[in-house]
Amino acid sequence: MSGQQAVEAAIATRRGEINDALDEGLPLQEPEELYEASRYLLEAGGKRLRPTILLLVAESLADIEPEDADYSSFPTADDDPIDVMEAATSVEIIQSFTLIHDDIMDDDDVRRGVPAVHREYGLSTAILAGDTLYSKAFEKMLETGARSERSVQALSELATTCTRICEGQSLDISFERRGAVTPDEYLEMVELKTAVLYAASAAIPAMLLGYEEAVDPLYGYGLDIGRAFQIQDDLLDLTTPTEKLGKQRGSDLVENKQTLITVHARRSGVDVDNLVAADSVEDVTEAEIDEAVERLEEAGSIQFAREQAEDLVQSGKDNLQTLPDNDARDLLEGIADFLIERTY
Amino acid sequence: MSGQQAVEAAIATRRGEINDALDEGLPLQEPEELYEASRYLLEAGGKRLRPTILLLVAESLADIEPEDADYSSFPTADDDPIDVMEAATSVEIIQSFTLIHDDIMDDDDVRRGVPAVHREYGLSTAILAGDTLYSKAFEKMLETGARSERSVQALSELATTCTRICEGQSLDISFERRGAVTPDEYLEMVELKTAVLYAASAAIPAMLLGYEEAVDPLYGYGLDIGRAFQIQDDLLDLTTPTEKLGKQRGSDLVENKQTLITVHARRSGVDVDNLVAADSVEDVTEAEIDEAVERLEEAGSIQFAREQAEDLVQSGKDNLQTLPDNDARDLLEGIADFLIERTY
Repeated sequence: MSGQQAVEAAIATRRGEINDALDEGLPLQEPEELYEASRYLLEAGGKRLRPTILLLVAESLADIEPEDADYSSFPTADDDPIDVMEAATSVEIIQSFTLIHDDIMDDDDVRRGVPAVHREYGLSTAILAGDTLYSKAFEKMLETGARSERSVQALSELATTCTRICEGQSLDISFERRGAVTPDEYLEMVELKTAVLYAASAAIPAMLLGYEEAVDPLYGYGLDIGRAFQIQDDLLDLTTPTEKLGKQRGSDLVENKQTLITVHARRSGVDVDNLVAADSVEDVTEAEIDEAVERLEEAGSIQFAREQAEDLVQSGKDNLQTLPDNDARDLLEGIADFLIERTY
Repeated sequence: MSGQQAVEAAIATRRGEINDALDEGLPLQEPEELYEASRYLLEAGGKRLRPTILLLVAESLADIEPEDADYSSFPTADDDPIDVMEAATSVEIIQSFTLIHDDIMDDDDVRRGVPAVHREYGLSTAILAGDTLYSKAFEKMLETGARSERSVQALSELATTCTRICEGQSLDISFERRGAVTPDEYLEMVELKTAVLYAASAAIPAMLLGYEEAVDPLYGYGLDIGRAFQIQDDLLDLTTPTEKLGKQRGSDLVENKQTLITVHARRSGVDVDNLVAADSVEDVTEAEIDEAVERLEEAGSIQFAREQAEDLVQSGKDNLQTLPDNDARDLLEGIADFLIERTY
């Protein structure tokens, strides 16, 4: 197996276990419509990258052979076992809550190939489904059986993370109304909106398992690769064919969304607002997008974003040196690479 | 001072301190629009009943003279002081988050005499403001300095409470689409949507301060008076003059909202859906409301709701016998009475 194949296999294996835990941990109880709506997006799919990172960090810290891990009874630094899968489902549930509310705010119709929750169930139920997942995530994080002081630390991290995600989403919305945004402002927004949940996913297992000294470097790993992930998302919007992307290529340009690429281009003198004449993704042509991408390449903006993402991945991998040298750490390095090598 | 005056004075005193703590605990930081929107409803007013109950329970448990309480350094059962005001702000912040999201779902334009948050700041910022308050409430509950195992217990209660509030709101929405609802179903909805936050407000100080044996009866007190509070709200909608109510009297009838009164009336053979012919609060006349109220009185429905509220208040007061006999307990009894004697 190549490194990339090993990483994809590791993600797939854990995804299966995470999906089972989500299915069991969020039963279809009364009121049924509320729980159906809360489960809907989770059932529609997703790579489960954040909980997978959480599990792999736990495996590496405990120096367990990846195939031997029993997540529901997982050894801590002082042996007293905990249910680390509860923490993994918690971060995925937070991710799902933010997607449901974001889709309302961005008025997006489709997510993971299915109608967005507010399209399927209406605005009220979608807001409530997000709110329900929010508190469920806190409930799950409290159900690991970890020592109280460690649970408090993890809970505190989770709460701060949620506040920051809201701040990041607020900045993202405000950027749409603004012209010039600096690369630093853009990266701060990405840090808040996207990267802190990766950071929490990597740091929380160290908190719960009692590896205090690893918390900061692992947080750094998550922050780095989370930012790289978002930059890669921005690149994919321009470079991946529409049919593979699952949405119109170049839609960020059509919708005048700020990305690291357009932020760089604007500062290099490119008239970003008029790169694409079409006002809607329905009207834009592939030729128009090709031409826009060419101009962004000439301005060095695509190269700039690629380099930023690569630097972040390297920095993230450096942070992993806090972990013991084992298969799980190799897989976490591989996930960092995967995030910027992926084409979907 | 009469009993009622003493209660209102006790609420007013604590409200002042709670408002200061809220103002300080939710500073107007970046992104400013987000925090402005998050603070907006809290600044617009509110009785602060839930945090007042939380503080009074703490005072009674610690057997402190109400005037002597230093909430930021409050003695626990084993003396180690904690900041119980953080817990008080937490429950008020949860209340504020639910109001912001509820107003979106119910498409209500006005709250506490000012435009609803989504009217003032738009849908996206209102959703985000609610989400921000949600995590802030968890952050606050973690900042009391209580022992970790007590913080975990309080956090767990808060998370479960939020899940239940969502379930209650979901039931409430579904009732609007249904005809017959039984009194038990209605009371279950009220328990989830409204009463559990009163229950948590009363029980959490016992958890944080280390009075484990008082947790269950205090929870019962909150559950009882929370249900009584909602029934009284339903009664006030019919019996308080429009100008005093701050909204059209009888608006629940016009909007076909289920209340304990209409649920009882329907079971007594009253054609509840046609009690008021007007389709909107703008079109309804006071005479029409008077006639509807008269019919509800004839059916015994208003009396039924009054008795239910009175029984709940009595049961709530019985639950308070777990507390030491002191001024703070008297005030908590007074608040129970106040909830169903109030005319606004």
